[in-house]
Order: sequence, then structure tokens, then C-alpha cells
Amino acid sequence: MALKTIGFVLFEGFELLDVFGPAEAYGIHDAGGAFRLVMVAQTAGKLTSAQGPAAVAEFGFADCPHLDLMLVPGGIGTRREVDNPAMISWLQTRAQEVELVTSVCTGAGLLARAGILDGRRATSNKRSLDWVMSQGPKVEWVQQARWVEDGKFATSSGVSAGIDMALAIIARICGKDVAEKVAISMEYEWHRDAGWDPFAKIWGRG
Amino acid sequence: MALKTIGFVLFEGFELLDVFGPAEAYGIHDAGGAFRLVMVAQTAGKLTSAQGPAAVAEFGFADCPHLDLMLVPGGIGTRREVDNPAMISWLQTRAQEVELVTSVCTGAGLLARAGILDGRRATSNKRSLDWVMSQGPKVEWVQQARWVEDGKFATSSGVSAGIDMALAIIARICGKDVAEKVAISMEYEWHRDAGWDPFAKIWGRG
Repeated sequence: MALKTIGFVLFEGFELLDVFGPAEAYGIHDAGGAFRLVMVAQTAGKLTSAQGPAAVAEFGFADCPHLDLMLVPGGIGTRREVDNPAMISWLQTRAQEVELVTSVCTGAGLLARAGILDGRRATSNKRSLDWVMSQGPKVEWVQQARWVEDGKFATSSGVSAGIDMALAIIARICGKDVAEKVAISMEYEWHRDAGWDPFAKIWGRG
Repeated sequence: MALKTIGFVLFEGFELLDVFGPAEAYGIHDAGGAFRLVMVAQTAGKLTSAQGPAAVAEFGFADCPHLDLMLVPGGIGTRREVDNPAMISWLQTRAQEVELVTSVCTGAGLLARAGILDGRRATSNKRSLDWVMSQGPKVEWVQQARWVEDGKFATSSGVSAGIDMALAIIARICGKDVAEKVAISMEYEWHRDAGWDPFAKIWGRG
């Protein structure tokens, strides 16, 4: 039986790799079945990504099972979803229940708009950081980081950074050896240092 | 209008990141809309990945539009698909028509079984290389490489290697500057050297 159920929050215009990079890491055979992956959206069914391909949400907000972890991706759809009261209130409710709230890329903007990150250290995609920061003036934004962990909140930088953070979370939950096996299985050169961020400088941050 | 249409071949038990890593790179805004992404399977509809989450094939083999490029992913489903005559014959037909045949991970096993890589240099996932090699005894298998290009064939190593190869192909088609922009936008540390492969040694290759 899976140790933890992780809910991936889908919406129209979600960023493909924000979801499926971490999903690969949590779901790969070498993670030992520790994680049950659940795709959830406001309404169950087909959701089209920002890049075109569609994924399937098995659950809607109303019938989503208990979650231990949640992952909120970025993507151009976040610009719309920050103004969606159904999304914001579902995130607020579920964020209280789960043991770990995570975001990738501009997903942090959604969490920030919901007030979930108030008083917390958090980061996001470096190119879109101005927009993300404007969604949560009470968040302590970190402008240079691959990812930031603060209590039960873990927010990653843009797109591929979600994979590194997922590996760090797997290491925390399942042990470092399991995370190393997962990274090797993905033939992925894992950035283990949460402070590694050459992209901040490119976008004039840090 | 998109310059090139790229078909991603889905089947039950495909590996998530093999498809959606490259799909992110080809489909991201900074690729300038050069690529139209098409998800195709034997029968259109929902296909469940090896990791659990499902993707949607908009086209079946019968109604798949003209493709310029194709990508065959790996995943546990390849072990079944090598014995699927419908898959093998569709790959054989389409491989002749496209200008670039690509595979990620054990997708090379499918291409090999179809005879498409005969006499060509190719690589695959390093852990599963014995199985992959057994599918194509006439292929010149390269046991240490991030990816291998030989004429109109480009085969990558396991899972995340597909992203590096996609960036190299974007560089070839759209120019190096575009590929660099895509990598930065994904906040991805791109392995530009096709010979970089620390994973071969881990699995006793090379």
C-alpha cells in the first residue's frame, strides 16, 4: 500500500513538465510504490496543458480523496486561476489538511493569492517572479533558490526545478538511498543543493 | 503556422517523462510555435502511463495526420508492444515517411524490433540495455552515450536524456539560440554533449 497520496492539481493551461517531472519521480518503480498519484481538477476529465497535450483528472474537487501531499503546477493557466474562487477556496481547505503543500514554477502564485504562503519563505520561476510576488505581498519571497522549504511548504523554481525538489522530498520521506535510486533510474543529474540557481542571475534576480 | 509536426506515440504503460520532458521542450512558448505536438496511439483516447497518470491520444493510427518527426517513448509497456503487429507495422510505415525518427529510453527497443534501426548506431536506457539489444541484433548499439544521432535516427538514453536530445534537435531545426532560450525557460541545465553518460558506468556499460 502506498505510504502517501499526492494530489496534482490540474487546470487548463497547466505546464506539462511541472506536473509530469515530479510525477515521474514519485511514480517510478524505484520509489517502491510509496506514493499514490492522484490527478485532480475543478471538474474531472480532460485538461489541456499550456503546451497542447492533454492529461486526465480522475477526480474533481468535490470527490477528491484524502491527500497527504499536494502539488500545484505553474503554466499560463495560473493567470486565470488566481481569479477562480472555486480553485482558491479548494486550495485553502486542502492546504490545511495535507502534511506537505508543494508548488512548481508559477504555482506559487496560486498558493500566494490564496494566502497560503503568508509569512512563509517561498520561491518561484525567476522570469515570472514579479507577477508571482504581486500575488502575495505578505510572502517572504526568495529571489535566488532552486527550491525553498519552510515548514510544511515547499516551493520550487521554474519547470525542471520541480524534479529536484521532488527528489529532495522523496529523500525526506523514503530515505536518501531511495531518492538516489530514483534519480539514477531517471538517468537524471540531480541538483541536491536547494541554493543552486544560475537562472536567477539571467533574469536579474538575487 | 508550425514548421514541423511531431507525433508522440502513446501506449498503455508508457513512461511519463519520456513523453512529457521532450513535449515540454518542443511545446514551450520560447520554441516559437515551431512544433505542433500530436499524441497518437493505436486507438485514440485515454492511455495510462507506467506511473499511473493518463494522457490523451487525439489520434489513432488510422487517422493520424502527416508527421515530420516522431518520438517513441519507453516504459514497461514496450515489453508488450514489441509483440503488437499493429504497432510494429505502423512504426515501419511512418518511419519511412518522417524526416526524423526519435526514441527515448526503451523506445529504441520498439524501433529495433521493427527493424527500423538495422545497420544504424543507436542507444537506450542503460539498465534495460540487454533487453533492448536483444530486440535488434543488427543494430550497432552504443553502450555509453546520452544520445546517438545517425542520419534520420536519434535515440536517447533513459528518461531525462530525452530532454537533452530534444534540445539538440531544436537547436538543429530552429537554431542554437532558440534551444538556449527553451532550456533557460525550463530552468534546465542542458547537457549539450551527446557523449556525457555517467549512468553507463553505474550499470556496468561502456
